[in-house]
Formats: sequence, structure tokens, C-alpha cells
Amino acid sequence: MTTAPVDRSESHATTTPAVGTRARRSRQVTSADIERFTAMTGDRNPVHYDPDLARASRFGAIIVQGGVTSGLLNAVVAEQLPGPGSVFLETRWNYLAPVRPGQTITAEVLVLGSRRDKPVTRLRTTITDDDGVVVLDGEAVVWRDPVVAARTATEHAAVQP
Amino acid sequence: MTTAPVDRSESHATTTPAVGTRARRSRQVTSADIERFTAMTGDRNPVHYDPDLARASRFGAIIVQGGVTSGLLNAVVAEQLPGPGSVFLETRWNYLAPVRPGQTITAEVLVLGSRRDKPVTRLRTTITDDDGVVVLDGEAVVWRDPVVAARTATEHAAVQP
Repeated sequence: MTTAPVDRSESHATTTPAVGTRARRSRQVTSADIERFTAMTGDRNPVHYDPDLARASRFGAIIVQGGVTSGLLNAVVAEQLPGPGSVFLETRWNYLAPVRPGQTITAEVLVLGSRRDKPVTRLRTTITDDDGVVVLDGEAVVWRDPVVAARTATEHAAVQP
Repeated sequence: MTTAPVDRSESHATTTPAVGTRARRSRQVTSADIERFTAMTGDRNPVHYDPDLARASRFGAIIVQGGVTSGLLNAVVAEQLPGPGSVFLETRWNYLAPVRPGQTITAEVLVLGSRRDKPVTRLRTTITDDDGVVVLDGEAVVWRDPVVAARTATEHAAVQP
């Protein structure tokens, strides 16, 4: 973090959601996402591009990059819970099953803890595929910028506990 | 993982690199990467798009999504070390400093451990910016598909210890 305006709020109650709050978001992943991830990173792993090789591998077919899958959690925290201005401080993710182009995945976050002295929230993070298989599981710590939080509407789809 | 061909190799010595082996990869991140990440995930966090709001925030200016930064580690493991066929089983990452469009970041992996019974490698993972600031630090566990490993050339930039 760079130097920044001093945050004068006494509590971050408005920017840290209550324990037990949940939000979820679904998206169909496509081969276009594989190409976007490659353009963004340089990752041209043949398991994402070579159908014959992917078929011969343990994966059995083309899979998307893990970063395509986990990216849906970036969207949940930035768009929904905690909301705009949120960035990951820490992520601990286990990739449990492959995701294939064409599948619809659902990312869910559950608030495990919120600090009152800082706009910091600990989340359980889970992504499932359209068969209900958990493809990613873990936790994340999110920091939400108070200025962005104050200036943006927080019309998120969070469900109170 | 789905059902797959039985792996008959007795050792994964060819697919698990020696402890101490390193590889690194650099890339300039751009505002096009922010847009790719948004198209791929739906993350339209204003800290990536609104210069005035970003300036007023703790970040001080537009930043790229953490997934843009960490994606360079996907490229290192898939393109270099361990090499093609590698996927993350587990990532534990701390995001220590913001990355801005225009910066060149360098991702480095260092082999901390390799299993001989499975093609599994534990890596220290670090990303620095062009000022040498560590922007991401942590560890990852990678599984490398033996069929893909056997069939692809492994001309990687790994430096033996």
C-alpha cells in the first residue's frame, strides 16, 4: 500500500459485513476465457488447448486454467460481498477438480470474521460446478477501501444470516 | 480428477524437479489485462477503472486485479517449471502491494520439495515489481500430468541449484 488519506472513521461496521453473511455468483466458463487468460499471462499449457493430449492425460479433456475459475471469487468480493473497493490480502485455495469450457460454475463466499478496527473480512470461499462438485475450496482475507466503500452504492446480493 | 489412464511409471523423477531449482518470468501488465480479467470474471471493481476514485483511495491510483498478477505464476509453472501439464493443487498467496498498469512484474518459483511417488512439487512463489518490491509471496503445490510431461518438450528456463 502507498501512503494515503488518513481514515478517520471510528468503526468499519459499514464496510465489514456480519459473520454468516453469504453471497454467490455464477458464470459459464468458455474457451474464450482460456484465451483471455493466456493473453493476460502467457500460460499456453497444452491441457487448455490440445484436445488429443488433454484426452490422453489424467484430465480426460480440455480444462480451463485455475485462475479462470478462481477469478469468479474476485468478482464476488468486488461486486457483491464485501463490495466495491475490496481486494484480496490473502488467498488459500485448494483446486479439487478440473473445470471444463462450457460448465457453469458458482462461487460462494461466507463471512467467517470481520475486524472492527480495520475494514478486513475473513471469508470461506467455495466454487462448485453445475453438477455440485466442489472444484475449489479455501479461505480468503479481504481488505475493503473505506473511501471506495463510502462512495459506491452497495447494492449487493448478500443474504443476511 | 476424473478417471484416467493408470500411470505405470515407477518414478516421477523426470517430472519432479530437484529441490532448489528456480525459474522466473517477467511481463508488463497493462490496462488491457484489466479488461481481459473483467471479461473473464465480471470483476468491474472501480479501483481498476475509475482514476479519480482510485486516487482518493488507499491505492492512490488504478491497480490491476490480484488475479492478473498471480496469473504470471500459472505461466511459470506451465511454461517453465515444472513445465507443460502442470496445474495448481493448492496456492497460498499473500498480496503485499498493489500493481499498476505499465509495471513489469517478475514471477519466480523455487522448488521446496518434490515427491517421488507422485508428480507433485511444492514451490515457494514470489512476484516482484520493477522496483524490486515483493507484491505477492507464498507457496503453491503443483501436480504435473505425466502423459503431458512425457509428450512435450521441456525446454524450460529452470536454473539448477
